[in-house]
Amino acid sequence: MTRTIVASATREIVIGFDQPFCVIGERINPTGRKKLAAEMVAGNFETVIKDALEQAACGATMLDVNAGVTAVDPNATEPALLVQTLEIVQGLVDLPLSIDSSVTAAIEAALKVAKGRPLVNSVTGEEEKLEAILPLVKKYNVPVVAISNDETGISMDPDVRFAVAKKIVERCADHGIPSHDVVVDPLVMPIGALGDAGRQVFALLRRLREELKVNTTCGLSNISFGLPHRHGINAAFIPMVIGAGMTSAIMNPVRPQEMEAVRGANVLNGTDENCTNWIRTYKDYKPAEGGHAVAAPVAVTAPGDGAAAAGGRRRGGREARMARG
Amino acid sequence: MTRTIVASATREIVIGFDQPFCVIGERINPTGRKKLAAEMVAGNFETVIKDALEQAACGATMLDVNAGVTAVDPNATEPALLVQTLEIVQGLVDLPLSIDSSVTAAIEAALKVAKGRPLVNSVTGEEEKLEAILPLVKKYNVPVVAISNDETGISMDPDVRFAVAKKIVERCADHGIPSHDVVVDPLVMPIGALGDAGRQVFALLRRLREELKVNTTCGLSNISFGLPHRHGINAAFIPMVIGAGMTSAIMNPVRPQEMEAVRGANVLNGTDENCTNWIRTYKDYKPAEGGHAVAAPVAVTAPGDGAAAAGGRRRGGREARMARG
Repeated sequence: MTRTIVASATREIVIGFDQPFCVIGERINPTGRKKLAAEMVAGNFETVIKDALEQAACGATMLDVNAGVTAVDPNATEPALLVQTLEIVQGLVDLPLSIDSSVTAAIEAALKVAKGRPLVNSVTGEEEKLEAILPLVKKYNVPVVAISNDETGISMDPDVRFAVAKKIVERCADHGIPSHDVVVDPLVMPIGALGDAGRQVFALLRRLREELKVNTTCGLSNISFGLPHRHGINAAFIPMVIGAGMTSAIMNPVRPQEMEAVRGANVLNGTDENCTNWIRTYKDYKPAEGGHAVAAPVAVTAPGDGAAAAGGRRRGGREARMARG
Repeated sequence: MTRTIVASATREIVIGFDQPFCVIGERINPTGRKKLAAEMVAGNFETVIKDALEQAACGATMLDVNAGVTAVDPNATEPALLVQTLEIVQGLVDLPLSIDSSVTAAIEAALKVAKGRPLVNSVTGEEEKLEAILPLVKKYNVPVVAISNDETGISMDPDVRFAVAKKIVERCADHGIPSHDVVVDPLVMPIGALGDAGRQVFALLRRLREELKVNTTCGLSNISFGLPHRHGINAAFIPMVIGAGMTSAIMNPVRPQEMEAVRGANVLNGTDENCTNWIRTYKDYKPAEGGHAVAAPVAVTAPGDGAAAAGGRRRGGREARMARG
């Protein structure tokens, strides 16, 4: 059984097919968050602290830590800032961390100070990247996220993406890194732009699980980019990728709809034993009236508020039939 | 490609792997609804009418019609009552109907008056049942739901359930009924009682799709029986069964959370072309604040309201990285 072990100073987590889905909190990341970037550059970590505590409170399994505040000479600023951010976060929460940077020197600096067994995020199939990152991954004996693109970019052909993932796993082996320490990101495209994006990733996940037997991850919210009510698409995508074999995702754990989908899928996937976590989380749950009340446009007119009317009914036809049959 | 065609007098619907998920509205069913049963016995169809219109308005693909008002001598009462109910419903909405009865005479009486091409719900693997129902299915040239239990009851062994389904499909063939007119119900058990119920049904659905190449259905809400916040479990189960190959379900279309999961899974499964239905349904969607706001119990304390704080953020780290990478 594939087991990727990550750890903080005090807590060990296993990523695996028989484990609850690993939610990697994405929020400590200034990329595309100008205000956060400005704060971090100014040495203000209030938002970082808030994001760390909130994500932990909402049920994140681990936290991604990124300090990419600028695209202008990141080599000069990012190593020190990533170290500073990482030290603040690991002093605050006991969750394992993911060291997220495109700057090799920043990853190395962070690995030197990280407690436990962090995840390195990430390496790609690009030669230069492989040669820069894999020796560090080996030296520090940590797992690594392998993103299935290379010098030619992100292929729209899932077979090419699988081949890139396979190449990275093989290159890891050459460096003495076992495949259970490689977490493959098959790359999720926006479904609004590429109608086949869902089926592509489900098929890729099955092959990655069955043929390469590796753990997997993705930037989950990419799938809904550009669509209205993105949380609804994300919340449907989560059970589908979990059913297809995905074992972790970089996502926003502060979103209750997405986290409910994770918890529900864990129950259904058999990784929430005796439904313990579900029952503890939702035993007193009262849904907001009309929280999702959207009727599809059809030819007939409803005589009342459908959602409210259906309220407390618990026993449908088939259920009752099974009881009597 | 497997295509099961159902129709009302004016509307034809295809159930199939490349089609939007077929939602069979379950509500017109007095089993376990004492008030509705009493109304129907008294010739009062107000609730039936309301249920028909509401389910259609909420996006049901077809409607199940059941008139099982009593377990005491159903043969005497059910045929006439089912005919009456069916005629009211088919006069009201243009959706294809499912004729749902355990009384063979009621199914035959309903088939005589049904317009279009209804679905017969159901036959099992029991010899007596097969010999009673299959000649009717052949005579009226309609599709049938095949429930995978037999004289020995419902097996807890999914291989046995598959074998029963296979037997029914073969028996249908003996009667001249093609497999594309058999919609197999693999039987969904409550996950709270049987922790393996989810994985069992996912595996069964794959086999039914790949080996028997049949369409499938289930009584969806059975999965969450006995658990708190059942809609959350149902809403996670829907994308998982759709991903595993299920093509229809008998469910409550008046529940917005479940229907959102159906619509989201259709997008991700590539059966909502250009996301047209999703965009039309949710383009002006405003989620209720805190509608799902449940934080998991963890060791640290959150300094504020996580759900509200995360509100409008749209671009996570990986997404931004893909843009820059």
